[in-house]
Amino acid sequence: MTTARRDTYTPETLLTVAVEVFNERGYDGTSMEHLSKAAGISKSSIYHHVAGKEELLRRAVSRALDGLFGILDEAGAVRGRAIERVEYVTRRTVEVLVAELPYVTLLLRVRGNTRTERWALERRREFDHRVADLLGAAQAEGDLRADADIRLATRLLFGMVNSLVEWYRPHPGSGQDAEQVAEAVVALAFDGLRTAP
Amino acid sequence: MTTARRDTYTPETLLTVAVEVFNERGYDGTSMEHLSKAAGISKSSIYHHVAGKEELLRRAVSRALDGLFGILDEAGAVRGRAIERVEYVTRRTVEVLVAELPYVTLLLRVRGNTRTERWALERRREFDHRVADLLGAAQAEGDLRADADIRLATRLLFGMVNSLVEWYRPHPGSGQDAEQVAEAVVALAFDGLRTAP
Repeated sequence: MTTARRDTYTPETLLTVAVEVFNERGYDGTSMEHLSKAAGISKSSIYHHVAGKEELLRRAVSRALDGLFGILDEAGAVRGRAIERVEYVTRRTVEVLVAELPYVTLLLRVRGNTRTERWALERRREFDHRVADLLGAAQAEGDLRADADIRLATRLLFGMVNSLVEWYRPHPGSGQDAEQVAEAVVALAFDGLRTAP
Repeated sequence: MTTARRDTYTPETLLTVAVEVFNERGYDGTSMEHLSKAAGISKSSIYHHVAGKEELLRRAVSRALDGLFGILDEAGAVRGRAIERVEYVTRRTVEVLVAELPYVTLLLRVRGNTRTERWALERRREFDHRVADLLGAAQAEGDLRADADIRLATRLLFGMVNSLVEWYRPHPGSGQDAEQVAEAVVALAFDGLRTAP
């Protein structure tokens, strides 16, 4: 006799549970035992779906990275002046972050102890560089302050955007929605909080 | 016979070691055994200095909080228009964060499982509220955009400032110093990256 639920998981729904556990306990601190308990199915049932916890991590961070890199191919990111493109990418990054909150949260907490984690960190850096390049292009076109340090500005911009995973909680029917937050980020980063002179 | 070093610690130097271990392993994941190994002295020697790991946490986050709250009593934070005061506080917050990097890092990672952690979270929120009040006053004086959501702006501002603990590393003799980073944060937050029209 067993208390385990019947395995009605797909790789996709199993991923939802795994990401929740990874975010709660940390990837390093999560064992197959923890995943098995959280999913309510046996470890062998999990192995039926995936090769192990690293595969679940790879699928999860891939989902976050695909969302982020997808932005860079959208029309708003490839046409127009660099300043418009970087504003578009910033706005969409906030939207993707909110839409894929648990997945991006996991991506941002990855530490680099395994090959998959190091790959995820490398891809994250690549995304940051793409945005830094856009900021640099906007500066070259004279639309960003000439005295702004682009590397530092990129870090501050992502510091602000990525902080959402710490405090943003969706409130259905009330509170800030993703679009409002995205607009606030863009307004603060590019125009500042001060009243226009 | 023992391989332990002779106990030449003071509560202050023991704190330095403890904060390093807390930041590396997380406060929850740190045992007295870990602290004893890292310090190279016996557990009973540690108990000679402090009542336990929670006292070390309290001392460490107190140091960070004293640094932050101290800013609010400085002349620049209490005199002048609210916009000048909030810019001053933002700049000094970055400087304190850099000066007390391991202590503020620990403060920002506190999770709330113990009384000391919940107290630290409460004090942190209080500091955020004091800054939010200043932003609100600057808006009331017409110096911040009327359409800015102060609560959201406060979160984004701290998101940006607090991200420093993730990426800022002091490079003696080169790289960005605290003042440059503080200026960049203030310029981005209040004037934005865009070229003035």
